[in-house]
Amino acid sequence: MITRLSQLFLRTLRDDPADAEVPSHKLLVRAGYVRRIAPGVYSWLPLGLRVLREVERVVREEMNAIGAQEILLPALLPREPYESTKRWTEYGDALFRLKDRKGADYLLGPTHEELFALMVKGEYNSYKDLPVMLYQIQTKYRDEERPRAGILRGREFVMKDSYSFDLDDDGLEKSYHAHREAYQRIFARLSVKYVIVAATSGAMGGSASEEFLAESPVGEDTYVRCVESGYAANVEAVVTPAPAPLPVDGLPDAVVHDTPDTPTIATLVEWANGALGREVIAADTLKNILVKLRYPDGKTELLGIGVPGDREIDEKRLGASVEPAEFELITEADFAANPFLAKGYVGPKALLDNGIRYLVDPRVVTGTSWITGADAPGKHVVGLVAGRDFTPDGTIEAAEVRDGDPSPDGAGPLVAARGIEIGHIFQLGYKYTDTFNVDVLGENGKPVRLIQGSYGVGVSRLVAVIAEQQHDEKGLRWPAEVAPFDVHVVIANKDDAARAGAESLAAELDAAGLSVVLDDRKASPGVKFKDSELIGVPLVVVVGRGWAEGNAEIRDRFTGESVEVPGSEVVARVQALRAS
Amino acid sequence: MITRLSQLFLRTLRDDPADAEVPSHKLLVRAGYVRRIAPGVYSWLPLGLRVLREVERVVREEMNAIGAQEILLPALLPREPYESTKRWTEYGDALFRLKDRKGADYLLGPTHEELFALMVKGEYNSYKDLPVMLYQIQTKYRDEERPRAGILRGREFVMKDSYSFDLDDDGLEKSYHAHREAYQRIFARLSVKYVIVAATSGAMGGSASEEFLAESPVGEDTYVRCVESGYAANVEAVVTPAPAPLPVDGLPDAVVHDTPDTPTIATLVEWANGALGREVIAADTLKNILVKLRYPDGKTELLGIGVPGDREIDEKRLGASVEPAEFELITEADFAANPFLAKGYVGPKALLDNGIRYLVDPRVVTGTSWITGADAPGKHVVGLVAGRDFTPDGTIEAAEVRDGDPSPDGAGPLVAARGIEIGHIFQLGYKYTDTFNVDVLGENGKPVRLIQGSYGVGVSRLVAVIAEQQHDEKGLRWPAEVAPFDVHVVIANKDDAARAGAESLAAELDAAGLSVVLDDRKASPGVKFKDSELIGVPLVVVVGRGWAEGNAEIRDRFTGESVEVPGSEVVARVQALRAS
Repeated sequence: MITRLSQLFLRTLRDDPADAEVPSHKLLVRAGYVRRIAPGVYSWLPLGLRVLREVERVVREEMNAIGAQEILLPALLPREPYESTKRWTEYGDALFRLKDRKGADYLLGPTHEELFALMVKGEYNSYKDLPVMLYQIQTKYRDEERPRAGILRGREFVMKDSYSFDLDDDGLEKSYHAHREAYQRIFARLSVKYVIVAATSGAMGGSASEEFLAESPVGEDTYVRCVESGYAANVEAVVTPAPAPLPVDGLPDAVVHDTPDTPTIATLVEWANGALGREVIAADTLKNILVKLRYPDGKTELLGIGVPGDREIDEKRLGASVEPAEFELITEADFAANPFLAKGYVGPKALLDNGIRYLVDPRVVTGTSWITGADAPGKHVVGLVAGRDFTPDGTIEAAEVRDGDPSPDGAGPLVAARGIEIGHIFQLGYKYTDTFNVDVLGENGKPVRLIQGSYGVGVSRLVAVIAEQQHDEKGLRWPAEVAPFDVHVVIANKDDAARAGAESLAAELDAAGLSVVLDDRKASPGVKFKDSELIGVPLVVVVGRGWAEGNAEIRDRFTGESVEVPGSEVVARVQALRAS
Repeated sequence: MITRLSQLFLRTLRDDPADAEVPSHKLLVRAGYVRRIAPGVYSWLPLGLRVLREVERVVREEMNAIGAQEILLPALLPREPYESTKRWTEYGDALFRLKDRKGADYLLGPTHEELFALMVKGEYNSYKDLPVMLYQIQTKYRDEERPRAGILRGREFVMKDSYSFDLDDDGLEKSYHAHREAYQRIFARLSVKYVIVAATSGAMGGSASEEFLAESPVGEDTYVRCVESGYAANVEAVVTPAPAPLPVDGLPDAVVHDTPDTPTIATLVEWANGALGREVIAADTLKNILVKLRYPDGKTELLGIGVPGDREIDEKRLGASVEPAEFELITEADFAANPFLAKGYVGPKALLDNGIRYLVDPRVVTGTSWITGADAPGKHVVGLVAGRDFTPDGTIEAAEVRDGDPSPDGAGPLVAARGIEIGHIFQLGYKYTDTFNVDVLGENGKPVRLIQGSYGVGVSRLVAVIAEQQHDEKGLRWPAEVAPFDVHVVIANKDDAARAGAESLAAELDAAGLSVVLDDRKASPGVKFKDSELIGVPLVVVVGRGWAEGNAEIRDRFTGESVEVPGSEVVARVQALRAS
C-alpha cells in the first residue's frame, strides 16, 4: 500500500520546538515523528510509530534467535512483590505509585524482575524445564526527576526487558553471553555506534554487569576508555591502579605546624609554599572527608575517606563503592557529638584512634608522605607517612577519574567520553529468587535455587539515538533497517506526465515489495525536497523535469549523491542501492 | 521456526482455577494462555500473546483498509484535558488517578477522545486536510468495580480506539459507516457471532450510536431482538410503542377510596379485587416513583415518574433517559421538605399541582383509566383518566422491557438475550471539538468546527470472546485466522522412526510457510492428545503407530474428524483443510 503525503497525518515544522535542546528531539518533532503530551510523555505519530515498530522488530528477531520467548506482563502491578524486595521504597520518587478504588497500592512497572521470578516459580518445578529466557517488549514507567531530550529520557517509554533463569553459574554465564551477542547484533543492525563498558568494579565477578553506551556528545553517562587497549568502563567501574609501595626508611619525621586560617586545600598549599621552602602542590596534601553511611537496616556509621588534595570526591563512584549503604554529608551535630574532629583540620590519627573506619584512595600507598590535618584547629602535620605514621583500614574508589589517568590495564591514558545507555546486561544472581524461594526439583531430588539474569534494551530511546547519531544539518537519516519507508517518491513537476510517471513508479516499487511514500501534495518542489531531507527516508526518487526524457533521479540521503536513470531502471537501481 | 513444546514456556493445568466461573477464563488459564497478577490484571504467556497479536493484526488490517492511520498515544495522561471535558470527575472511581513526584495530577487513559481532538487541532488547520481517521491499538485502564471472567472484563486491557474528524454531518456519516463495515469484516474474520444493537434511543439521530455485542450466555449486556424483523437494541435504546389514545367520553368519574394499609402495588391490587367487585391486575394501577435528578452544573430537581404497576423501573433505561443528569432515590428529608407528598400514596395530582415535573410511561396514553395514589395516607383514587383528570408533562422510557413486549417496529414480540460488548461506534458530534475549539479554515475562509466520531474494539476481550464462543468440553478451538499456530504436530510413539518422521513433517510444514508447534515432550500419547485438545490449534497431525506404514493422522479440532494419510501427502492435505 502506497502512503500518500497528501493524506498522511503529518505536518512538518519549520522551526525547532522551544523546549528542545538536542538534535534528535528537535528533528523528531519538526519532522512530525513525535509530539509532547506532558513532561517526558510523548505521542507517536505515523512516521515515528513506523520507526518504533521497526526497532521492535529487530529486537524481537534477535531475541527469538537466541531462544528467548516473548510474553507480556501488565504495567499496572500490585505493591506486594516490590514490597518483598524493598524496591517499593528503594525506588524512591522514581516510582509512579497509585491506589485503586479499594485503596490497594499499585505501581506502574519500571522493570519486572520480581514478576518474572514469580512467573517462573508459578509455572516450572523441575530442573528439566530449565534453562529459560523470557522477554517482553513493553511500555515502562519511571518518574524521572528531569525528563529530557524528548524520547531520549521519557517517563513513559518502550523497553525490551528479558530475564534468564538457570540452574547454576555456568548456565547464567551462557545466558548472559547469549544476550551480550544478541545485543551486539541488534545494535549492528541498527547502525548504532556504541561501546560496551564494565558497569561495576568487578567485585561481583568481572563481567557481572555491562552497559551498552551509544556514543554521543549529548549522552548523560560519562565513561572512560583507553584508546590503546580498547578498555572502556563507566567511571564507577574504574579501578585506580595503585603505585608500588615505597620504602619508609630515611623519610623525615612528621612535624606538626601552626597553620592558621588554612581550612581549605588552596589555603594550605599557599601556606606550605611559603613556610616549607620547597614547591608544594595540591597532590602533596591528603584531604580527609567524612560521610555518614546509612545501611538498609537503618544503622549508620561515620566513615573517613582520604584522597589526594588535588582530587574531588566523585559522588557516583563513592555511591557505588559503599553500596548497599547510602552516604550523606555529616552535619554540625555530628561534629558536636565527636569533639575529637577538628573541622577543616581532620587528620588520619583522630579517626583511627577513635574507632572511625578510615579508607584511602589507592594512591595512598605505604611510603607516601603527606601534608594533612593534625586534628586541632589551625594545625597541620607535614611528612606524615602512610604505613609508618598511620595505617588505613583499606582503600576506596571515591576520587574522581580524570582525562589522562592511567588505564587500569596499564596500556595508556584514559580519555573521558559521553554516551547514552541503550542496553544493560546484568548477572543478577539470587537477589529475587532468594526473596521468592524460586526453586525447582534438581536431578538429585533436592531443590535447586534458580539463578537469574536481567537484560534491557531501551527500544523507544533507540529511535532517538539513531536520529542523534545519523542526522545531518538538513534533517533525519534513517538506516534502511529501521526507516519508516524504503523509498520516498517526489512528484517535482506539475505536468500531468510527471505526476502519472511518479504514480506508476510508486506502484512498481510497491509491487516489488518496497514500502513507498509518495509526495503527491500540491507544494513546490523546493518544499518537497526540504521535507524529504527532514523526514530522512534513505532513498528519494524524484520525478521532475527529466521525466520529459523519461528519466528520474535517485538520491541517496546518506551520501547526498544522486543519479539520473531511465524510468524503466528505477526499481532495479533502488534495489541495488538498498543491497549495497 | 518450529516451536517445541519441550521448550515452550507453558504448563497446562488439569484443574480449573478456583476463581474462574466462565468457560473462557477456565480454559485460557488451564491451557496456559494467561495468568492472573492482580484483580482484573493479567499476564499473557506465549500462546496467549500469539493469539492477541493475531487479533491485533486483523483489526489493524481492516482499519488500514478504510484509510485510518495508526498512531500511539501515551497511557499516562495529564489531568487538564480531562478536566476541561469534566471527565476527570465524571468517570468517578473507574478512573485510575495518580500524582507525579511534583504533585501534578495524572490519569491512566480509559479512552482518548480529548487527546485525539487536541492532536488534530495541533496538526491541522485547513479544510483541505480533512477528513481524517486516526486509531491506536493500546493498553487501556479502567478501575472496574467488579473485574471478572479473566480477560473478559479487565482493569488493564488492549483496545483499538479510533476517532474520525470531519467537516460536516455527511462526512461523519461516511466515517461512521466505514467503521461499521470494517467492524463487520473484523468480526467475520474472527468468526465471532454478534449482533449490532442500537445503543441510544435515537434522540441524537437514529444511528448515532451502535454496539456490537457478541452473543454469549455469560455476557453482561442484555439486549432485545425481534426474531421476525431482525431488530435488535440495547434495553436502554428500546422505544416503547405507544398505543393509540382512547376516547374519554363515557368513562366513569374518578372516585377516591379509603384503602388503609395499601402502600404497595400488591396490597393495592388485593384491596381492589375485594372492594371493586371486578378483576383488577397490577397493570391497572399507576405506580408513581420520585427521583432526584442531579445535573452536571450541580442543580437538582425532583421528578415524578408514572409507570403501570406491573413494571419495575429499569435503572439503566432511566439513567439513559435523564442524561446528562444523574438520578438518585429521594430521602426522608425530601418527603419532609415536600409535605404534599404522601409516601406510598403519591398521585399525579399533587405532583402537577405543586410544580413537580411528571413524566409517564408511553403506555399511559389519553383515555387510559388508572387506580393510583390519592395524595393522602391510606387513600387511592379509582378511575383516574389520563388526558381528562391529569395531563403529564411528557413521557419517559424508564420501565423495564420484558420478553414478549412488542417490537418497536411492530413486527413481532421482543426476546431478551445476553451479549458481550466487543465494539462500539459513536457519532460523538461536537462535545470535544467544542471544548477545545477544534477549528480549521474552511473553503470560504471562515473557521469550521470539526465533528468527531469515536469507535472502539475490545482487542484483548476478543481473545476471551472467541474462546467463549468456540470452545467445547475438551478445550479451546481457535479459528485459523487467530490460532496461535497453524498446525500442532504430536509425536505419539516412542520409537525413533516416528520421532524422526514427526520432525521431518514439522520441518516440511514449516517450510511451506505454516506456523508449527511440535509436541516433542517425553509424555504419554494420552497426555499429549489431551493437551492438544486443550490448547486448541485447529489442525493436529499425529505421528504414531501408523507411521510404521508411513501414515500420519490429521485431526480437525473443530469437527473432531480425522483422516489417515501417507506422510508424503500431509502438507498438501493440511493446506487443503486450511483453505476449506
